[in-house]
Amino acid sequence: MNNQKGKVYLVGAGLGDEAYLTVRAYNLLAIAQVLVYDALVDAELLRLVSPDCLKLDVGKRGGKPSTPQAEINKLLVKYCQQGKQVIRLKSGDPFIFGRCMAEIEALQAGGCEFEVVPGISSALAAPLLAGIPLTDPILSRCFAVFTAHDPDVLDWQALSRLETLVILMGGQNLAEIIQRLLQHGRSLHTPIAIIRWAGTERQQIWTGTLETIVQEVSDVPLSPVVIVIGDVVGLRRYFQPENID
Amino acid sequence: MNNQKGKVYLVGAGLGDEAYLTVRAYNLLAIAQVLVYDALVDAELLRLVSPDCLKLDVGKRGGKPSTPQAEINKLLVKYCQQGKQVIRLKSGDPFIFGRCMAEIEALQAGGCEFEVVPGISSALAAPLLAGIPLTDPILSRCFAVFTAHDPDVLDWQALSRLETLVILMGGQNLAEIIQRLLQHGRSLHTPIAIIRWAGTERQQIWTGTLETIVQEVSDVPLSPVVIVIGDVVGLRRYFQPENID
Repeated sequence: MNNQKGKVYLVGAGLGDEAYLTVRAYNLLAIAQVLVYDALVDAELLRLVSPDCLKLDVGKRGGKPSTPQAEINKLLVKYCQQGKQVIRLKSGDPFIFGRCMAEIEALQAGGCEFEVVPGISSALAAPLLAGIPLTDPILSRCFAVFTAHDPDVLDWQALSRLETLVILMGGQNLAEIIQRLLQHGRSLHTPIAIIRWAGTERQQIWTGTLETIVQEVSDVPLSPVVIVIGDVVGLRRYFQPENID
Repeated sequence: MNNQKGKVYLVGAGLGDEAYLTVRAYNLLAIAQVLVYDALVDAELLRLVSPDCLKLDVGKRGGKPSTPQAEINKLLVKYCQQGKQVIRLKSGDPFIFGRCMAEIEALQAGGCEFEVVPGISSALAAPLLAGIPLTDPILSRCFAVFTAHDPDVLDWQALSRLETLVILMGGQNLAEIIQRLLQHGRSLHTPIAIIRWAGTERQQIWTGTLETIVQEVSDVPLSPVVIVIGDVVGLRRYFQPENID
């Protein structure tokens, strides 16, 4: 069909805003012939591809279900084998809860060249944009990142002993997360922050302690949010001189 | 002197390569009037600022000691108060072991406007560029990031129970790290990868197990490296079809 060699780029879209794309991701979007993207990818980024680029939305939107993974794999392989430059755009970083391995296995089985391009992960950048450093020489020598849609698979005894926790997809299980940490010895007074729509104009932040937060956010839809637990949440005061607790 | 309002941007430089800068960092470098940078920041990035930009190297180079923190703080405040656009460039992400708080406190005390701009952290991107996803639906529901220049301050009992560990600044203490994990029940057969110069042409990767790695890297200088410990290291085989273990 043509002599160009196809390639699939699994690219981190960062937080949705063009400003937090990498230069490499920005340049790849400009040359994309096929763009395969998820629901979490911001519409703003879709404007960075050429008008000729085929744009395939494989995410959940409204009531419509998402494209099955096997179907996504087939699309990537098909267009790559046609010699296209295919961008598989994933929110955040492709290797942080990006579920890339099924796609990579399919690409390898199909003899497709591929490359994974890192992105700004909300796990790190949402706290930063909320004014919370995840590390601190005294308060936080270590942080752990995990999802909490299934609390039963996690080792809460170990997690409760770490200085700083970053939880993705945990909004629905906030009360359960707190209960497990308290059961394993975490103090009721441990600071917690909940960050929604990080890095966008809609960004919202709630702070409190493991004792107070559930009530504070009781009437707020908590999906998708990033939750930060630990004393570093208190360092946020440096970003709000009028609002010192 | 002039009517422009000064501002200090604490900017993540990512891995050193321009490709892994954010678009925002790239654009800020272009308008920088003063650039204050560390030894770990790659020389390539210094070419992105205007020829008129004042470039101040405050990192350790060769035998020369680094500029004391108090001196760096004074420089940032001084140029900001002169109305300059000051970029404080930090390798990786400024809030991941970036030691920003002293600078932020000084900026606030000096009445300086400031903004923190996230960057690609080697904690996440070095594993990715080595073909290692830090998360996996089965092998890794959780990962922890820490530095290991002082192993005594860490809770090894908790860390040894987490699926995936990412260790920065741990090269000098590799044998000690492994000994502590083994003492707390981690298996000798746990996979480990050591990544040096991630994302550059010089990138090098060593893999093995907690049993074998110390001997494998015995004649290699291990600074600065990113260490990854856990079963996800095995997923790297998808990136090397000829080299399956």
